[in-house]
Amino acid sequence: MALTLPTPSSIESAHSLIKPYIHRTPLLTNRTLNNLASTPQSPESLKGTPDEGETPANPKIRFFFKCENYQRIGAFKARGAFHALLRLIEREGEDVVRKRGVVTHSSGNHAQALALAASTLNIPAYIVMPKISTPSKIAGTQSHGAEVIFSGSTSTEREAVVAEVQARTGAILVPPYDDYDIICGQGTTGLEMDAQYKELVAEDPGLSVHSEEQKQAYLDAVITPIGGGGLNGGVATFFSDKETRVFGAEPSFEGADDCRRGLEAGTRIETVKSLTIADGLRTPVGVLNWAIISDVEKHSGVFAVTEDQIKAAMRLVLERMKVFVEPSAVVGLAVCLYNEKFRRLVEREAPGGWDVGVVFSGGNTTVEAIGKFFG
Amino acid sequence: MALTLPTPSSIESAHSLIKPYIHRTPLLTNRTLNNLASTPQSPESLKGTPDEGETPANPKIRFFFKCENYQRIGAFKARGAFHALLRLIEREGEDVVRKRGVVTHSSGNHAQALALAASTLNIPAYIVMPKISTPSKIAGTQSHGAEVIFSGSTSTEREAVVAEVQARTGAILVPPYDDYDIICGQGTTGLEMDAQYKELVAEDPGLSVHSEEQKQAYLDAVITPIGGGGLNGGVATFFSDKETRVFGAEPSFEGADDCRRGLEAGTRIETVKSLTIADGLRTPVGVLNWAIISDVEKHSGVFAVTEDQIKAAMRLVLERMKVFVEPSAVVGLAVCLYNEKFRRLVEREAPGGWDVGVVFSGGNTTVEAIGKFFG
Repeated sequence: MALTLPTPSSIESAHSLIKPYIHRTPLLTNRTLNNLASTPQSPESLKGTPDEGETPANPKIRFFFKCENYQRIGAFKARGAFHALLRLIEREGEDVVRKRGVVTHSSGNHAQALALAASTLNIPAYIVMPKISTPSKIAGTQSHGAEVIFSGSTSTEREAVVAEVQARTGAILVPPYDDYDIICGQGTTGLEMDAQYKELVAEDPGLSVHSEEQKQAYLDAVITPIGGGGLNGGVATFFSDKETRVFGAEPSFEGADDCRRGLEAGTRIETVKSLTIADGLRTPVGVLNWAIISDVEKHSGVFAVTEDQIKAAMRLVLERMKVFVEPSAVVGLAVCLYNEKFRRLVEREAPGGWDVGVVFSGGNTTVEAIGKFFG
Repeated sequence: MALTLPTPSSIESAHSLIKPYIHRTPLLTNRTLNNLASTPQSPESLKGTPDEGETPANPKIRFFFKCENYQRIGAFKARGAFHALLRLIEREGEDVVRKRGVVTHSSGNHAQALALAASTLNIPAYIVMPKISTPSKIAGTQSHGAEVIFSGSTSTEREAVVAEVQARTGAILVPPYDDYDIICGQGTTGLEMDAQYKELVAEDPGLSVHSEEQKQAYLDAVITPIGGGGLNGGVATFFSDKETRVFGAEPSFEGADDCRRGLEAGTRIETVKSLTIADGLRTPVGVLNWAIISDVEKHSGVFAVTEDQIKAAMRLVLERMKVFVEPSAVVGLAVCLYNEKFRRLVEREAPGGWDVGVVFSGGNTTVEAIGKFFG
């Protein structure tokens, strides 16, 4: 069966639809991080890595950080959730959707996003969460008026409970990432970055590596984290008819770089069992998103980083930028700072450097978790 | 000897002078924190406090957060440092100041601020820091090109080293807070808040508690932390000919609320020995700042909070607002959320509520420190 994939114009329509419900989050620049990224890593820091002994790459990078940690519910997931529900209402009619309600299983940001979108649009929401979810996430989901139903932790157990809820209520399933409407919603992140980059650089050309050429007004590259791939697939779709290249970033820990490995092997990897600290990225990439990301016309590649590199990037964002992010959010930045393969690519492709858009995907972590990461 | 104190117009002049060198940091609002502040505390949470058994106050508060954690070097201190040096140059001439240089003793934000201002203005800077300062602060100060000179930790030891440096170099002392020009610089925080509040409320009247009255365009109150008192004294001076009332906030731990206790006793308390986690507020209030803060024509009072209340406020700012702040920064917010005396005052004075400007003074802490606070 041929898959129906979103197009740039479906993302533009999604943006019109969700605009009243979401924040246009800021696109921030940071001189300290530009300088760090534009300085070669020390040869010592490459010891014990595949790049030991190589001359460290010397790319020039200017960052433009899209701060979806300031999005509603603290993550980009609000975009997809609002879009999925608004489209559901368009297709099925308000009365039907309000009578049946919506259901999903998630212990993360998608749960809170769907709960918020549903309560805003006056739709009952049933969220299936593992019994062992952190109390704050359960409370967060309930605080948006959703009914939380507990399940076991395996996907089989969770899906069984979803089926029960559907049988009882008729609720419509809203999947977290492998869904046309969800992908369109997340892709609006790219649309806003494109527009905000142009605004910023028009006002202050010095922010761009291209300030002297004066000939270009687009980001050279955008990088986002990949978990299920909705964000990365949506952003890659939006830029697929533009000059900007799109990259993905994953944690390498315990094989969480399923998408990168799948691209290498030429086939999607369907299961992941990783406890990477980037807990939003422990999922295998979805079928639709795989179709987008594995298309070389739309996507330029996926790079992975270690847990220590994620922590180092997170420290920089917290301590230097003073922006509160979750570990999953900084995986793209970690690639730009520490992945020699990516850094050599930038150096080789563009002696003048690249303007790189980096998506900070969310900020839902706790001070206790930070204590553990850096304790 | 009569003290010469700054006036609102001296703060306006200071702003014109330093504007090219500092950031106009954002003034942020936050619905979650408004709701929390506008909900009575639970009777249980008052157990063991002087307010046990009282009916919890029920004020209405809308916050406007001045984010000086996004100021250059990560704290408001950049304002005072630039102002002090620019005025020094005005008075003494560039050549003299460049030849002699400037000196201060500080292990905190003032050291980095003076180092930055001096390197920007091409002036040699000598910073006396205790040997036991954290290496990151030493490195931060050196990275701005200042010469760091080590001393013992007591104020006598530090002052002796400053005297040595002055004898050797002729460097001019720039004190951290008890200084006319420093106070004027820090006061520009209030000037910007006043202007930004008016801009925000003009654009979206719903942000204000007064949206229905349509009659007012000023903050009802502003609250800032008090360490040496330069920020609070400067802000109180700026608002002294306006409708906005100014309050101060201190930690109560081990007597760090010296200014509050001094006001109660009718005399300035000259020494403080507290290891409050709000490490920027471990200093006694300075002589000039005391003269401003103890003047009831200019100042409306000082309130104190416990270490647990500071931590609770810090958690909210990090986890909910996603804004990275140091403990000292949130002491004013903690007063608004948890100090029943302050909350009763708001309830009594304004049934319709108050628009309250809160200064987040800085963001210079580390992930390790956060791990310790919440570990």
